[in-house]
Amino acid sequence: MPNPTAAMLVIGDEILSGRTRDANMYHLAGQLTEAGIDLVEVRVVSDDAPAIVAAVKSLSAAFDIVFTSGGIGPTHDDITADCIAAAFDDHIDVRDDARALLQAHYDRNGQELNDARLRMARIPDSATLIDNPVSIAPGFTVQNVHVMAGVPSVFQAMVATVLPTLTGGAPLLSETLRIDRGEGDIAGPLGKLAAEYSDLSIGSYPFQKDGKYGANIVIRGQDAVQIASAMTKLESAFPL
Amino acid sequence: MPNPTAAMLVIGDEILSGRTRDANMYHLAGQLTEAGIDLVEVRVVSDDAPAIVAAVKSLSAAFDIVFTSGGIGPTHDDITADCIAAAFDDHIDVRDDARALLQAHYDRNGQELNDARLRMARIPDSATLIDNPVSIAPGFTVQNVHVMAGVPSVFQAMVATVLPTLTGGAPLLSETLRIDRGEGDIAGPLGKLAAEYSDLSIGSYPFQKDGKYGANIVIRGQDAVQIASAMTKLESAFPL
Repeated sequence: MPNPTAAMLVIGDEILSGRTRDANMYHLAGQLTEAGIDLVEVRVVSDDAPAIVAAVKSLSAAFDIVFTSGGIGPTHDDITADCIAAAFDDHIDVRDDARALLQAHYDRNGQELNDARLRMARIPDSATLIDNPVSIAPGFTVQNVHVMAGVPSVFQAMVATVLPTLTGGAPLLSETLRIDRGEGDIAGPLGKLAAEYSDLSIGSYPFQKDGKYGANIVIRGQDAVQIASAMTKLESAFPL
Repeated sequence: MPNPTAAMLVIGDEILSGRTRDANMYHLAGQLTEAGIDLVEVRVVSDDAPAIVAAVKSLSAAFDIVFTSGGIGPTHDDITADCIAAAFDDHIDVRDDARALLQAHYDRNGQELNDARLRMARIPDSATLIDNPVSIAPGFTVQNVHVMAGVPSVFQAMVATVLPTLTGGAPLLSETLRIDRGEGDIAGPLGKLAAEYSDLSIGSYPFQKDGKYGANIVIRGQDAVQIASAMTKLESAFPL
């Protein structure tokens, strides 16, 4: 059975403006690979409601699982929850269960649950909450879309909550061989190897270091024996 | 006049598998912001021809300028050039101008221009070449799509070649204020400020450090005077 497919939607201006270098995509990609869920596409869109709604609809229809990050805080630019509701034609308002979580949290800290903070309890009617052990304000799941925070520590905690609830396939295994020759010398034998092992994914990631060319050849698949067999052939084609 | 809009398409399995953390997106986003070109969307897709072709068509139609990275090397998994040709219904084969560049380069280095390396001279008929001062194999431009390498040093060199040929708008300016209070305390006054300065984009990027909450408030726009005015109001609302 093929692995389930996933997409990620990163919401927010900070990556598109070059202010922030992505961390959540990198984290999620590694986690999904381990879990046997194939991350097939990532989109990054700005804090723009029509763009978010369109991307959610499109990715939700095309893939088994969708993860979003960003835009669920208390400020005016946090519009993700309302966009998810719009994408699924769902009603959204402050929900009692989410409000209770926040009320207890701010009571403990002697802070006021003001209007801004209450925005974080706006959850679509059909959603189930995702636990946020870091800063309490929950994420949520609507159908196949898991809506999570953009702050990396919170994002990672929510991923850790959601992942065990998903049914993955066989984890993707990989082995890497570094070859200190230009890709142009590697490509011929590598292409033949890829054709011979068509169940494996064989990727070539070139690099340039101290003026010399090389490539890391990564062989990926679900069958360790097959990967080892392909790796043996690769090594004998390019002896050190 | 509004700034031109841009999208980026990152092609390749290495980011989706969690093997590599993105660098090219981060570089391009910063460069475009300086150039006054609005990066509106990024997509990451795997080495899968239908996915690449569909993304190129969709982004090329929706935005003024599209940049791609990855998949133009000599190995079997480098399928970007053929996908670009397919997306624009263009013919593609080894082109004399690209072959001449490669032949001269490999002659100089005493290397053979073998079949694999010759793949890098496969360029769509209607394309213009993008200079690659790092490793010679050219990128290319078809209509509004600029096709560049995935190796960061080569990608950056190609961006440096292409950017001056594009007409940008006013550079996006920004000022940042770090406020060491939770977003829930900031959100109310910030929302009012955002409403008052509707020509500016005001973003809140929360962080958590040593158990304390804070946020970097970034005010972006094209009018330095207006940004300074909004920043003054923000500072007086949240005195240090």
